[in-house]
Amino acid sequence: MQNVTYPKGFIAWGLACQIKKNGKPDLGILVSEPPAQTFGVFTTNVFQAAPVKYDIKVLQSGKKISHVLVNSGNANACTGEVGDKNVLETASLLLEVSSAKGDLLISSTGVIGEVLPMEKLSAGIRRLFAKEKDYSPFHQAIMTTDTFEKIGEISLTIQGEEIRIGGAVKGAGMIRPNMATMLAYLTTDIALPASYQEKFAALVEKSFNSISVDGDMSTNDTALLLANGASGVNYVNLHATEQKSFDDSLLSLMQKLAKLIVRDGEGATKLVTIQVKSCENAAQAKTIAQGVANSPLVKTALFGGDPNWGRVVAAAGSCGVAFDPQKLDLDFCETPVLRGGNPASYVEKDVADKMLAKDISIVLNLHSGSSEWTYWTCDLTYDYVKINASYRS
Amino acid sequence: MQNVTYPKGFIAWGLACQIKKNGKPDLGILVSEPPAQTFGVFTTNVFQAAPVKYDIKVLQSGKKISHVLVNSGNANACTGEVGDKNVLETASLLLEVSSAKGDLLISSTGVIGEVLPMEKLSAGIRRLFAKEKDYSPFHQAIMTTDTFEKIGEISLTIQGEEIRIGGAVKGAGMIRPNMATMLAYLTTDIALPASYQEKFAALVEKSFNSISVDGDMSTNDTALLLANGASGVNYVNLHATEQKSFDDSLLSLMQKLAKLIVRDGEGATKLVTIQVKSCENAAQAKTIAQGVANSPLVKTALFGGDPNWGRVVAAAGSCGVAFDPQKLDLDFCETPVLRGGNPASYVEKDVADKMLAKDISIVLNLHSGSSEWTYWTCDLTYDYVKINASYRS
Repeated sequence: MQNVTYPKGFIAWGLACQIKKNGKPDLGILVSEPPAQTFGVFTTNVFQAAPVKYDIKVLQSGKKISHVLVNSGNANACTGEVGDKNVLETASLLLEVSSAKGDLLISSTGVIGEVLPMEKLSAGIRRLFAKEKDYSPFHQAIMTTDTFEKIGEISLTIQGEEIRIGGAVKGAGMIRPNMATMLAYLTTDIALPASYQEKFAALVEKSFNSISVDGDMSTNDTALLLANGASGVNYVNLHATEQKSFDDSLLSLMQKLAKLIVRDGEGATKLVTIQVKSCENAAQAKTIAQGVANSPLVKTALFGGDPNWGRVVAAAGSCGVAFDPQKLDLDFCETPVLRGGNPASYVEKDVADKMLAKDISIVLNLHSGSSEWTYWTCDLTYDYVKINASYRS
Repeated sequence: MQNVTYPKGFIAWGLACQIKKNGKPDLGILVSEPPAQTFGVFTTNVFQAAPVKYDIKVLQSGKKISHVLVNSGNANACTGEVGDKNVLETASLLLEVSSAKGDLLISSTGVIGEVLPMEKLSAGIRRLFAKEKDYSPFHQAIMTTDTFEKIGEISLTIQGEEIRIGGAVKGAGMIRPNMATMLAYLTTDIALPASYQEKFAALVEKSFNSISVDGDMSTNDTALLLANGASGVNYVNLHATEQKSFDDSLLSLMQKLAKLIVRDGEGATKLVTIQVKSCENAAQAKTIAQGVANSPLVKTALFGGDPNWGRVVAAAGSCGVAFDPQKLDLDFCETPVLRGGNPASYVEKDVADKMLAKDISIVLNLHSGSSEWTYWTCDLTYDYVKINASYRS
């Protein structure tokens, strides 16, 4: 499993520099040779972390990227002016020790409101380029409370040439669109034009921005796509159907990684897919799906295996979207429980039995249009509370 | 403690009619003689329960109310046409057995999506008027997962006359503005004009619509104010300052009852007061306060006694209100932790010690206007998950 290094021209590695108290890997670097046209989607939180503000400026300059540095264990968020200064110092040191040919991006994830331990970080950056033995994998260095690795790769052949796409993400807590304490790194060896930013943002909407663990939105969320063209294929020279094949492959990998984040949601025991169908427009469908996905009452019922579908209806009805309750169909675990706003006949024990599965499906049909949206969430468990009531200890 | 029967002209009682499986009181009646000018604020959920739709129609007719019937254990929500039919049947029977001189209102609270057990309910209504011995208190009959009674009373003297206000509410889960599975009954013996509806709605905004247990909004939320004029005092004849005294007394009682709901939030161990100050307008202040109040990460940190105030900042920044992060001050447990967007100096252990208290204060100051809002919430605990993962068993 090479993930981010699966496409040609990418290398990546990591190490432990003691920002994390548990001694696990907490510093990673991703390098593209040649430097890559890079696309980014970032948190919309008012409190964008210092590295997020820095990365946005770098990408606005339009320069190609050769190095992405990621630390975990400290988010460098809500750290005021010293936080901004520390990002600049980090970038300056990285430029010095890496002899980078392109520009640099920096990500941080971890505790908010604590100043970066610059001495540890600086020593770590130097060690990254000191050609030590036994470096850790990049995708492990970016993890925080993640309990398993979230990586993937996909390839497609267009006009006889193989194009590769790889990805590594971290998630776990503070996960909700726009975006999550989610860091996502996608790499590909196709060449993409700067105008692909709009398309990438739309794919993020349908993947990383359609997942929820707890409804909280982080200060650090970042999704990056690096395209270095090392395959020799250029997106702009492809036919529209070939371009769509690439877009679909990329979305497929992004959705796979997004679902891994949900499956590893803090304390989660179930992956829940919420489909909202036949809406007037996609925004309404997404709002309803998100409302259900973020309802603590729905999520605790899913944990408890209680087919208390009334909570789904209550959540759908309270998210500010006007619709006709007399048209609503609800399928809960593949069982029709509501038809045209009236309770359907079903055997409750059968539904309860289906709820024992690790994958749960909830489908709402509003019968009022042709738009739909799919959203993924997890259940709310004792362990979510346990993990988050003692995050820093 | 007479609560709803403290003002002149009100009587109230209840009994158990086995809608609740545990045999606790589940049917209550509140009677006003003379019939009362009545004001209502109801859930804005698309799926308004059958009794809510019924009550809204009754109040629109402008007739005075003599009887309010409340059942707990079954919400009669998402029950389709049979739900509407059952409310009409209930009202019809109540009118018959009570010989009511005014109009009737009906509230239900409990499980969603199950049809009302009409045989039990009908028998209960007959027994309410059969002059049995040992009726239960009204305020107990309206409870669901509440662990303690939520009642109060207040009086004031205007122009030598005593005016009384009483209240009984139920809360516990699915609590968030507009409104909650919250039922609130306020009574007063002042006479109020029909135009007081607007004022009552504004007072609800500052009390029952400024609390959150889990961010879920019920299909049944109802706040009623019955004013029967039995004191001989008429609001319209008072000076503006006297009217304000009455308004303030009513708000004071409503806020007291609202805070009791939060303190008894499902699994709650702490009452958290969130003040957002110096905003451009009250709507923004309320949105930010609500965003912090509904954040699972903030609420689990409060449970764990972890002064992880970065989560407060992240929640405030992600609720869609644009403000300048460089102006933000945050006081957490009376400790300045952020000043002008920069972390302040403080001793973390001192803050952790303060978090052991049952009452927690969070104050955000945006320094960008003169509006403010206060919101109350509770922590998110193992017991919240436990209660809601097994609600119906």
